[in-house]
Amino acid sequence: MAGGHRLAGMGASRGAALGRARVRQPLLPETGRERIAASRVEDEITRLHVAVDSARQEMALLRQRLHGAMPAEVGEFLDLHTLLLDDPELLAALDELIRSQRYSASCALGVQRQRLAALFEQMEDDYLRSRIDDLDHVIGRLLQLLNPQQRPSAGVAGEILICESIAPAELVQLPASGVVGVVTTGGSLLSHSAILARSLHLPLVVGAHQALQKLHSGQLLIIDGDSGQITPDPDAEQLRQYRLRVRELARERRELQRLRSKPSRTLDGCDIRLLLNAESSEDFTQVHRLGAAGLGLYRTEFLFLQGSSLPDEQTQFEHYRNAVLAMAGRPATFRSMDLGADKADRAGLAPTHEENPALGVRGIRLSLANPQVFDTQLRAILRASGYGPVRLLLPMVSGREEVLAVRRRLRLIQRQLRDSGHAVSEQVALGAMIEVPSAALAVHGFIDLIDFLSVGTNDLVQYLLAADRNNPNVSAYYNPLHPALLQLLAQLLDTGAQAQIPVSVCGEIAGDARLTPLLLALGLREFSLHPNTLLEVRQSIRQCDLDKLTAARPALLRARDRRGIERWLRAHTPASH
Amino acid sequence: MAGGHRLAGMGASRGAALGRARVRQPLLPETGRERIAASRVEDEITRLHVAVDSARQEMALLRQRLHGAMPAEVGEFLDLHTLLLDDPELLAALDELIRSQRYSASCALGVQRQRLAALFEQMEDDYLRSRIDDLDHVIGRLLQLLNPQQRPSAGVAGEILICESIAPAELVQLPASGVVGVVTTGGSLLSHSAILARSLHLPLVVGAHQALQKLHSGQLLIIDGDSGQITPDPDAEQLRQYRLRVRELARERRELQRLRSKPSRTLDGCDIRLLLNAESSEDFTQVHRLGAAGLGLYRTEFLFLQGSSLPDEQTQFEHYRNAVLAMAGRPATFRSMDLGADKADRAGLAPTHEENPALGVRGIRLSLANPQVFDTQLRAILRASGYGPVRLLLPMVSGREEVLAVRRRLRLIQRQLRDSGHAVSEQVALGAMIEVPSAALAVHGFIDLIDFLSVGTNDLVQYLLAADRNNPNVSAYYNPLHPALLQLLAQLLDTGAQAQIPVSVCGEIAGDARLTPLLLALGLREFSLHPNTLLEVRQSIRQCDLDKLTAARPALLRARDRRGIERWLRAHTPASH
Repeated sequence: MAGGHRLAGMGASRGAALGRARVRQPLLPETGRERIAASRVEDEITRLHVAVDSARQEMALLRQRLHGAMPAEVGEFLDLHTLLLDDPELLAALDELIRSQRYSASCALGVQRQRLAALFEQMEDDYLRSRIDDLDHVIGRLLQLLNPQQRPSAGVAGEILICESIAPAELVQLPASGVVGVVTTGGSLLSHSAILARSLHLPLVVGAHQALQKLHSGQLLIIDGDSGQITPDPDAEQLRQYRLRVRELARERRELQRLRSKPSRTLDGCDIRLLLNAESSEDFTQVHRLGAAGLGLYRTEFLFLQGSSLPDEQTQFEHYRNAVLAMAGRPATFRSMDLGADKADRAGLAPTHEENPALGVRGIRLSLANPQVFDTQLRAILRASGYGPVRLLLPMVSGREEVLAVRRRLRLIQRQLRDSGHAVSEQVALGAMIEVPSAALAVHGFIDLIDFLSVGTNDLVQYLLAADRNNPNVSAYYNPLHPALLQLLAQLLDTGAQAQIPVSVCGEIAGDARLTPLLLALGLREFSLHPNTLLEVRQSIRQCDLDKLTAARPALLRARDRRGIERWLRAHTPASH
Repeated sequence: MAGGHRLAGMGASRGAALGRARVRQPLLPETGRERIAASRVEDEITRLHVAVDSARQEMALLRQRLHGAMPAEVGEFLDLHTLLLDDPELLAALDELIRSQRYSASCALGVQRQRLAALFEQMEDDYLRSRIDDLDHVIGRLLQLLNPQQRPSAGVAGEILICESIAPAELVQLPASGVVGVVTTGGSLLSHSAILARSLHLPLVVGAHQALQKLHSGQLLIIDGDSGQITPDPDAEQLRQYRLRVRELARERRELQRLRSKPSRTLDGCDIRLLLNAESSEDFTQVHRLGAAGLGLYRTEFLFLQGSSLPDEQTQFEHYRNAVLAMAGRPATFRSMDLGADKADRAGLAPTHEENPALGVRGIRLSLANPQVFDTQLRAILRASGYGPVRLLLPMVSGREEVLAVRRRLRLIQRQLRDSGHAVSEQVALGAMIEVPSAALAVHGFIDLIDFLSVGTNDLVQYLLAADRNNPNVSAYYNPLHPALLQLLAQLLDTGAQAQIPVSVCGEIAGDARLTPLLLALGLREFSLHPNTLLEVRQSIRQCDLDKLTAARPALLRARDRRGIERWLRAHTPASH
């Protein structure tokens, strides 16, 4: 059997997969208007309500399962979907359509979807496309629940899903239902779904524009999440290659596991500190299992995203204390709540209307604008400091003013807590996230006020390049391999070294083992990364010669564009990579 | 008579004004539901249509008058308002309400406004508040036209308008109707209205939270657009002070006019280049009247914002050629179209849906994504270069890649134009706007490809500080007096000097005479500014000693925060200021 014509996409999540294609054309609600019998109306309404309830429960379950297994940002999608399912107006309109028009539930969904879409368009130009997409995801989910025969054949192991796009909420369920890989015609390497796929080790190819036309369900496929290549109807040789690749990957994984108890030490004997980014108590055990130096970033906002009211001091304290205890003496770094219009809590703290949410009231700005809420969090964190080493990290700092304001609050609260008999450490380290470019450029203005710095490259790149990381139309501009980022990192690391203030990087690039030599060359000695990426980075560190890399730093900083940086990387990547 | 209790606001536009208050409480449409006689229905519909037509005409007139008298950005507001007035759905709904419910036109507007507001809220949380504001502006305008007795008493000279907020479209009409000053309870120093008020020399106080409660119509007021102070019922001494202040301001203005023919030369004999930012042919004559060195920034996007189709090559060419001819040998700097989701053309070139338009497809990104449209503009600009010195300036450059791409296109088009017999200069200078932080940080990567740099500080500050300049909730963070901006400017100016590439600043700060000593100290020798601010800046330059300022540069760069920079400014501002 000769191999089929190969398709090209972009590798978005490593690994190779062999499976039967399940091609999912974009789901459209029924628009045919067949009426149901009057006698069936009430049953149909019940059927709809059952579907809505099921969808709601699924979301709740998902939220639980997702928690900790994904970047915090993904949770918002679920929240939005739950909101839509809870919207009484929407549901009343559906009941009404079934009752007065005798539409089937699926048909009512289709009609209501069209009405809403028309409203969106009429009033707001195309302004609201993203909300329509959300609506479609929810309606799609309801349609699947109403028509079980159309439901994805969950449980058929070894399928590769081919679709237009995939929501994080759906993606996370795929591995459990036996799906071994995903191909999307749209998408970008930096979407939430791509990040999620990587942390789930699920091979993902995005931007395979022709996949929906060229592939058909049931077709045997090989996909390669590194190269982005899709091989339909593989021939014997291609299958052999695939098996070799899988074996190779398995061997690599076993190799990696051996590194759990090894030091993160370069060839020339320099120890690099690897800390973990964590969100849940499961990640705490990873610190010990992987031999990490502690928690480098604990995203406390998840406490604010869960319920519909703000978490009180005691609830927060218990969470933070548990983290500190789990660390057994290693430091736990709590980032104060990082909410904003793009990551809104359900208690309504974050602004919900901003033209450019990424440039709005976020992070420490929101905290300083809500001093009572912020003080509650600071009290909880400070109380936890009685149980082990605690570091406090401030998101979205832009300069000296915010750090000063926080220090003043901290001093006051520390005194109050001690006065009321709480054990509070004298040594809570205060750190600033470096994600707003001004903070990086003006770090000399506040380095005397802080104990450590943590560079949030995900947002920093977004602001440096003026490119929204979630906007696929500027994904070519959202580029961490930009000389500007390297210049800024080099400056920061130099300033930190001079002032003897540790500087770590906690953005995605810290967990990208391909970039480890580059970060080491710039002077980085402390990484904070997702548990899933730690061993790969440690492996990369162990293959690096720090002396040689340091000598190559000037050449790296002379690179004029991405190509120049990639050329440097190729020249300085240890051979076995 | 003892002076009344003073109120405090923020001075947003210089100058002092004395006048009678006209207090305008937030305008609410009628919600009473009195019915009109059936016989009056058709008359009422006619009345409504006449009002809509008048509003539409007003907008068109305004647009003409505004053109050139305001920053280009203001035009969008008018476009949006015109769109709402043209919306057939909206108008049909109003007719229907009058016809079927026998509502008055005002009442129908009120009802329809409530309906729309409810829709906005129900579907979209508060996401759309800004569009509701626009709707309210339009409805308010229609209500005024329907109820002439409620219309602002235009023509009553010497009034000071006290209101919640003011749209740029309304503000621009005030001076002609005799209004001598404005106080708003909301607003920020950097809003479009504030920028507009400054360029109209209309005193404006914003953020006077208590003004609507404490002041009443007819009350005599003094407002000071420098200090932000509002003095109700001034006593004899306060009136005397006011007259002194006015005389002082008049004297200052006369002084300024004398500077038209004077060089922009520092006390120690260094000539500073002052160029103009221009949008219309009226500004061209200003170049000669004010003794400017040429056009430093000609915003070509206005050609794309006017019509509903894209301007063709010949239309563009004629515009550009006229500018070049009007310069009579001085350089004309054309910035290629700077459109985006936040400044959308009516032909639909710019994206209309982006979650963060400021971080989206804008400026050169949009041009490179639409090569045919871009080539047409490049051809028109290159053809104009046959008539005098032309410089081409690229907005939103983030690094080497975009500059390379443009150079390639330019070379090709130059050859094509010559081949088809057009006179094209060999010396069209190519420049990059520096407004994306990465371009500033990585300028070494493309300085070999360009002939000049122009720093767009308005956007640069927005990205550096991650603070939307139009979001009042982060106006405290949108701060040009930040050490980060000074660091970056200093680096840029040093790099430019080394490479012998001229660097100018064309953002708002270039036209702020208070900041002239600071910019000179950093090393700036070329300013590009609004015609209204040129003489003040020239005056400031003529009072500066460049040697002393240069010696004070290290102290300026050591400033750690805004306060430190302001302290430096106070210490280094020439005495007469």
